[in-house]
Amino acid sequence: MHNDTFPTPDVWLEHRVSYGETDAMGFVYHAEYLHIFERSRGAYLRSLGIDYNAVEKGGLFFPVTEAWCRYRHPAKYDDLIVVHAGISELGRASLTFTYRLYDASRTLLLAEGTTRHACTNAEGRPTRLPEWLSQKLKPSGGCASLPQEPTSPLA
Amino acid sequence: MHNDTFPTPDVWLEHRVSYGETDAMGFVYHAEYLHIFERSRGAYLRSLGIDYNAVEKGGLFFPVTEAWCRYRHPAKYDDLIVVHAGISELGRASLTFTYRLYDASRTLLLAEGTTRHACTNAEGRPTRLPEWLSQKLKPSGGCASLPQEPTSPLA
Amino acid sequence: MHNDTFPTPDVWLEHRVSYGETDAMGFVYHAEYLHIFERSRGAYLRSLGIDYNAVEKGGLFFPVTEAWCRYRHPAKYDDLIVVHAGISELGRASLTFTYRLYDASRTLLLAEGTTRHACTNAEGRPTRLPEWLSQKLKPSGGCASLPQEPTSPLA
Amino acid sequence: MHNDTFPTPDVWLEHRVSYGETDAMGFVYHAEYLHIFERSRGAYLRSLGIDYNAVEKGGLFFPVTEAWCRYRHPAKYDDLIVVHAGISELGRASLTFTYRLYDASRTLLLAEGTTRHACTNAEGRPTRLPEWLSQKLKPSGGCASLPQEPTSPLA
Repeated sequence: MHNDTFPTPDVWLEHRVSYGETDAMGFVYHAEYLHIFERSRGAYLRSLGIDYNAVEKGGLFFPVTEAWCRYRHPAKYDDLIVVHAGISELGRASLTFTYRLYDASRTLLLAEGTTRHACTNAEGRPTRLPEWLSQKLKPSGGCASLPQEPTSPLA
Repeated sequence: MHNDTFPTPDVWLEHRVSYGETDAMGFVYHAEYLHIFERSRGAYLRSLGIDYNAVEKGGLFFPVTEAWCRYRHPAKYDDLIVVHAGISELGRASLTFTYRLYDASRTLLLAEGTTRHACTNAEGRPTRLPEWLSQKLKPSGGCASLPQEPTSPLA
Repeated sequence: MHNDTFPTPDVWLEHRVSYGETDAMGFVYHAEYLHIFERSRGAYLRSLGIDYNAVEKGGLFFPVTEAWCRYRHPAKYDDLIVVHAGISELGRASLTFTYRLYDASRTLLLAEGTTRHACTNAEGRPTRLPEWLSQKLKPSGGCASLPQEPTSPLA
Repeated sequence: MHNDTFPTPDVWLEHRVSYGETDAMGFVYHAEYLHIFERSRGAYLRSLGIDYNAVEKGGLFFPVTEAWCRYRHPAKYDDLIVVHAGISELGRASLTFTYRLYDASRTLLLAEGTTRHACTNAEGRPTRLPEWLSQKLKPSGGCASLPQEPTSPLA
């Protein structure tokens, strides 16, 4: 179990690397990490009882406005990897997710990243996060702050 | 130039293999062929002056109901490959595309496949192809029939 | 639990639909089904104690030579879907996997498909399946035969 | 034609948005931008007469170590988009690509990003860029510097 501070609430998602996610270098293709981060984001919302399909039907969308990933160690076919995901920042009409990707033992950091999202209506216009969502999503005050990551662009 | 008979109208689309399309075996991942076929399908519709976005806005959709592909020779990163695409069958509420994928010289057959599509409304119910579309899409009577492909499931 | 006959050994794999797997029609993109089938194939091999990475290091590869999928009901973002996978045919240098994709209740058939694989060496030449692998992979004689699927091309 | 300063040599690559690149929001899925950037990177190397397959066969690899993208305007199915790519920084064993993605008129900026790459040997160890490659890749001294992008993490 990794000891770094991390925003709460958080979620851990296990993911098995498929052959389709690898590339000719023999490792997971770099763009797939954003896709795997997205899977953990979905798990995060589900863990809070938020049904994103219902959110969209209600006219709210969270399109990605910025994404960043640093790749530290490659993962290969059939590896079981684990994503740690949480929300590091919650604005009035935006939110930022932070991710750490580990090997199965949760000790070797494979990658880390962030995605910033706007909160918009169906026409793509910025929209204030409704109170019920802010309450569910806001990072716990008592939790430790993110470890300093000087080069992280979205922190 | 390949001499086989093929339905007309038809389209040839060049495609450059990306790294993301390859897998750890060093070749294009098998599911990507269906994606590449889709690119040629789009090129086919554009070549006939059909704007598929407008078709969907008008309430018609062509979801894939069946897909088949036979893989003959692998393609690797940076290869220029060429897809030959056309419509081999046009029903009242369905259509079948046929594809042949070649190397850059258009002589070595890399793969061949078919996709069958329903014509539906926005609720997914089968809908008769409108006359203006049938006229544009229907395979030319004068063209040669497809070469016999005994194992092709959708022919 | 679905009652259809199916080759054994078999495996069931749960899969959560990601946003990246969907397309503008709002449902899982058709090529992604082959990718999801691949995930269940990996789970199948693991369930038999076969380490496919080790198989490849040993110089054996199972490239896909033919793939087929019929799409019955769409799946959308966040759906939990379940793949039932097994081997329906084992040749001297080839094998065929069969797949059925269900909704979470395992009652509604969403899609079905097959993939045929060659067994090759690192140069891509057909190679006889080694005895230890054939023993592990061969469909159980006592199991029921596949339900008749008249249009399935690879059965 | 866009007038911003940009490192030279540079390349412009046209790309047609496929259905498979879109997601249920109706636009290109955010992870696909990194894939599209990769396509322009390949075009860049080809335009300089560099055969990346040959580079890898010679034992040099350029794995992505960091990626960043800011999304400004969405792109939808069938859009023709254009990527402007170049190298903004060349280290002894690393290089950074910068990308700008435009609509077909090359005036509306859809997205911008960067990818940092290590230069490694087949075992993944950092390796000095060989002189012949540095000569081909190094940004022209006479070219204008990148426009200031205060939040760009890799600039």
